[in-house]
Amino acid sequence: MDHRVTFPQVIGHESSAVIEDLGEGVASWKLGDRVTVRPLDPCGQCPACRRGYGHVCQKLKFIGIDAPGAMQALWTVPAHTLHRLPDALSLQDAALVEPIAVACHDVRLGEVQRGEFAVVIGGGPIGALVALVAQHKGARVIVTEINPFRIALLRKIGLEVYDPRETDVAAMVTAETSEAEADVVFEVSSSPQGAELMTKLPGVRGRVVMVAVFPKPVPVDLHKFFWREMRLIGTRVYEPVDFDEAIDLLATTKVPFRSLITDVYSLDGLEKGLLQMEQGADVMKILVDCAA
Amino acid sequence: MDHRVTFPQVIGHESSAVIEDLGEGVASWKLGDRVTVRPLDPCGQCPACRRGYGHVCQKLKFIGIDAPGAMQALWTVPAHTLHRLPDALSLQDAALVEPIAVACHDVRLGEVQRGEFAVVIGGGPIGALVALVAQHKGARVIVTEINPFRIALLRKIGLEVYDPRETDVAAMVTAETSEAEADVVFEVSSSPQGAELMTKLPGVRGRVVMVAVFPKPVPVDLHKFFWREMRLIGTRVYEPVDFDEAIDLLATTKVPFRSLITDVYSLDGLEKGLLQMEQGADVMKILVDCAA
Repeated sequence: MDHRVTFPQVIGHESSAVIEDLGEGVASWKLGDRVTVRPLDPCGQCPACRRGYGHVCQKLKFIGIDAPGAMQALWTVPAHTLHRLPDALSLQDAALVEPIAVACHDVRLGEVQRGEFAVVIGGGPIGALVALVAQHKGARVIVTEINPFRIALLRKIGLEVYDPRETDVAAMVTAETSEAEADVVFEVSSSPQGAELMTKLPGVRGRVVMVAVFPKPVPVDLHKFFWREMRLIGTRVYEPVDFDEAIDLLATTKVPFRSLITDVYSLDGLEKGLLQMEQGADVMKILVDCAA
Repeated sequence: MDHRVTFPQVIGHESSAVIEDLGEGVASWKLGDRVTVRPLDPCGQCPACRRGYGHVCQKLKFIGIDAPGAMQALWTVPAHTLHRLPDALSLQDAALVEPIAVACHDVRLGEVQRGEFAVVIGGGPIGALVALVAQHKGARVIVTEINPFRIALLRKIGLEVYDPRETDVAAMVTAETSEAEADVVFEVSSSPQGAELMTKLPGVRGRVVMVAVFPKPVPVDLHKFFWREMRLIGTRVYEPVDFDEAIDLLATTKVPFRSLITDVYSLDGLEKGLLQMEQGADVMKILVDCAA
């Protein structure tokens, strides 16, 4: 996304907040309401918008990338982006709604059913959330990940994680499913290795959900899609229903989303947090408290 | 498919015939019945068969490749492979049922709707049949093809054909659809160029139907699947309903399937016909009359 951000710019698109002021004509909200922001501002006019897919609007303004974002004490956003937080949900937890909504969208478009066998390739924050949501839907979930810190953290919260350099994941899936193979595979690693593994795992009519952002074309075994009548399902961001589901899952279930938070910094700690992520330090999800 | 054929072997899996003899216990057919053969013999036991996808059985015996095929005067097949031909359909025309059933399967799994914009990449026999079936469903269909003989033949039967070396197909589709882009793209060329073009054409939630057999992995722009929430749909052979539809389309419509037949040889001409196809001669579909 880097090339879309012009400097100086405030970035940030995962947030929770309290309403401090209201624009003219905004009737359905009041000062003090606790909210999270679905940071999408579609044009409303393009073919995608006209078909009801405003979340992938052909001229989408992604707030926090294409417009000023959440990492500031006061943030002005369109009222249509707001979702109300239930009382049971803390502001800190609610900062996780946006990435959980991504996972809800991926799992929904991947049509994960109770009893299915799912593999998540890549156990970073989004992969971990996809795994937790798919597991909550009743699927058996396997995660592949190579980072030792992530592997340990995900195992600690009850996920079944394998390092694909140590385990022959394809052979394991074949054995564990009595040769039926995986029902659904989520590619979240953005790696050529992931793009190779993703076609080896699904069975007949299995689905591969493309969550990752691949910066350039990579070799893909198209023959497998033909041979097993597999499907590749592209997924991007979320629709309003996914935000609602994410809020509901956070507020009403025991799914251990919060365990992915490894640090909470004040706005002063932002640079430190960004450097930690860039350097691949022992972090999963870092929150930044932007309150003035 | 070559490595699956052991010599000596009779090949051939597109056929029409008259029943000459019946096995014990076959009650629903009688001598003289005119039939076509759906040449799939599934195991009935594997996970794919148990899920109702016997056509992509994990141990599928494809009759004519894995077992003796149609290019002989007398051919023994399991009774479950037969479809009855209506009186209105000649044996010669009925030899086209099998490839038309492939096209019906591809178009059905591609969920082509009336009024949609479809692109077929590759105008060989299967691409041409996909285009004709999709057009019959009410889609506007564009075919891309580089062979001059095929281009001329397909234009003669009313298809809109472009040579992608002469026409910027992506720009043309963008303009013709007012930036909505294609609803569905069929990749039937098995070429790296086709794999590149297929991701450039669909719009948001557009579908790419993978009909082609790619012998090895090729670069694919996975980012496009993410960005536009596109889907890739693998399709292979056909199900019984596709055979029924193919028979019906041949017998009751004016779709010019027959115009794809460029030669009809006796069994003596088989080698000549195979050489013509191998050498890329001016042929589309060659029929072989195997009657004794």
